[in-house]
Amino acid sequence: MRKFNFCAGPAALPEPVLAQAQQELLDWQGLGCSVMEVSHRSPEFTAVAERAEQDLRDLMAIPDNYKVLFLQGGATGQFSAIPWNLFGGGSKKADYIHTGQWANKAINEARRYGEVNVVASSEDRNFSYAPTADAWRESDNAAYFHYTPNETIGGVEFPYIPDVQSPLVADMSSTILSQPIPVEKFGFIYAGAQKNIGPSGIAVGIVREDLLDRALPDIPRSLSWKIAAEAQSMDNTPPTFAWYLSGLVFQWLKAQGGVEAMAELSLKKSQMLYDFLDRSGFFSSPVQKESRSRMNVPFVLADARLDQQFLKESEEAGLLNLKGHRSVGGMRASLYNAVPVEAVEALVAFMADFEQRHG
Amino acid sequence: MRKFNFCAGPAALPEPVLAQAQQELLDWQGLGCSVMEVSHRSPEFTAVAERAEQDLRDLMAIPDNYKVLFLQGGATGQFSAIPWNLFGGGSKKADYIHTGQWANKAINEARRYGEVNVVASSEDRNFSYAPTADAWRESDNAAYFHYTPNETIGGVEFPYIPDVQSPLVADMSSTILSQPIPVEKFGFIYAGAQKNIGPSGIAVGIVREDLLDRALPDIPRSLSWKIAAEAQSMDNTPPTFAWYLSGLVFQWLKAQGGVEAMAELSLKKSQMLYDFLDRSGFFSSPVQKESRSRMNVPFVLADARLDQQFLKESEEAGLLNLKGHRSVGGMRASLYNAVPVEAVEALVAFMADFEQRHG
Repeated sequence: MRKFNFCAGPAALPEPVLAQAQQELLDWQGLGCSVMEVSHRSPEFTAVAERAEQDLRDLMAIPDNYKVLFLQGGATGQFSAIPWNLFGGGSKKADYIHTGQWANKAINEARRYGEVNVVASSEDRNFSYAPTADAWRESDNAAYFHYTPNETIGGVEFPYIPDVQSPLVADMSSTILSQPIPVEKFGFIYAGAQKNIGPSGIAVGIVREDLLDRALPDIPRSLSWKIAAEAQSMDNTPPTFAWYLSGLVFQWLKAQGGVEAMAELSLKKSQMLYDFLDRSGFFSSPVQKESRSRMNVPFVLADARLDQQFLKESEEAGLLNLKGHRSVGGMRASLYNAVPVEAVEALVAFMADFEQRHG
Repeated sequence: MRKFNFCAGPAALPEPVLAQAQQELLDWQGLGCSVMEVSHRSPEFTAVAERAEQDLRDLMAIPDNYKVLFLQGGATGQFSAIPWNLFGGGSKKADYIHTGQWANKAINEARRYGEVNVVASSEDRNFSYAPTADAWRESDNAAYFHYTPNETIGGVEFPYIPDVQSPLVADMSSTILSQPIPVEKFGFIYAGAQKNIGPSGIAVGIVREDLLDRALPDIPRSLSWKIAAEAQSMDNTPPTFAWYLSGLVFQWLKAQGGVEAMAELSLKKSQMLYDFLDRSGFFSSPVQKESRSRMNVPFVLADARLDQQFLKESEEAGLLNLKGHRSVGGMRASLYNAVPVEAVEALVAFMADFEQRHG
């Protein structure tokens, strides 16, 4: 029996997507083999790859002057790829906003290849908010400006898109496809798949074409966006099953009403949980109201000695993976697109009951 | 209905492995979710990861002073990673044997970061053989010696392991797990999974521990073997489904009798096909006898105008993906571990019949 899964990633996938993959796992399109067992250059798989790209373009309204890349190495691989692809255009300086663990990893990697200006940081209040635009001053001639629209661990989401001079680069791993975004405001968008796209092992990159000529000369071939773009993300064998499954998720998203519907749903789900947390005298959110994530909702119990009890009982109630990240403790409910409203209703009901019994 | 699949990669997987994955795709280990939907740090997935490593260690008799890595980016990613990980130990010079397209790609990438000495090449006879050891002279103080034990495209396999001074590095993408090998003779072994291990999107690296301290200082984090080793291949989210499926293949291999059984089978299968090719007056092998691959068998028709007819009829006969690589043309039958003897019997019978009708 399927349970409600609040895992931060690899995260819940839409059940109809898994059901289709299951049904055709041994014999795909009547070919007599699995989608995993055909060449990535076969007409059948090429069609999968092209449709996935087109569906993503449709869902996100990606302009024609952007290339869509399906990459390996996750968002972490892009922490390296970003400076390597953008520090060769004249400036080896970049602006970064520091909002928590993921921003920090991106910063540390970029620092190895150029000058990083941390324009704003929320470290002063334990990364519990998104800095506002008046907090920073951009560098002159930065190669790019990097931020993390949603910190998966801290549960902090930017309520706005920075308006900056240099190409805007965003790690959208945990918010991509959860709302409409104006892609044309960005230079490079990237996202590991394992939250709102598909299984782990594939990442999506969306890059403005004019940025493809700014790589450092020594860039490792496997990190080059330009080579990936020229080869339709098939410079080497891509993760075909992950690509196929991501494509099924895109089709499912379209059938659900696209990112507009997801935006509405994500607000509904997260609001339901935050409302409960704000009413509760036992559970609370550590995140500043204006910066609360629609995707990842960390919360704490008034008495941390009950954490284990909470996790045990919630699991027994069919509510999976509510444990907070090992670095911060507490609880976290991730409410990605594939998590249904019913899951949040069940969670809130369980928490209310738990509070009554233990609070 | 499942057909016989001779794809060079992504290649056929063992049917029992796919059947198990199918059965538990929506509810794995009774958890109420898919193996794709749990954290890579959960106890359940950690057990999968550890068992896969242990089974691979058992199958290949990997000594304790070697680290086993599960990597992203495929073998092509390692073409970059190898010089980056080994050119920082004092020498930026490496020896390479050039045996065809894959060796060439490895060479081209290494040349960007140091001096490559092509110690031997089979280009003189269209890459139709493996050079013998008397053909080359090693460099003094090479950082490593690289070769491609099996060229997937050319169908050329080394009948011996080079005995060299510097650490021996081998791209075993298309031969790994097809026979016992003395791992202790190698410094670094790597293989994309999509031939003899699992689905595409994961690669295996086996590295001698003392080589982990030879990286260039600027090495991108995502290419570092040392970081991967220290993090048990979880510096970032790994491709969990591909890892899980590879683990199922390792279990299947053990149940089949391990690499000794695979060695016997691969000889039997390839010999059956080569014997037929050598008897045939219509089909022939372009590869020198001593260097013929047990894994990839290219062959040509006496009349290339019949190529399309051959492909059409073979597909109708349930024999899939026999088309040669786009760069060389002709036909190619890949006979990896998951391709049963019956497949080769059916192929030979079909070819004999085709020859009788068209030859």
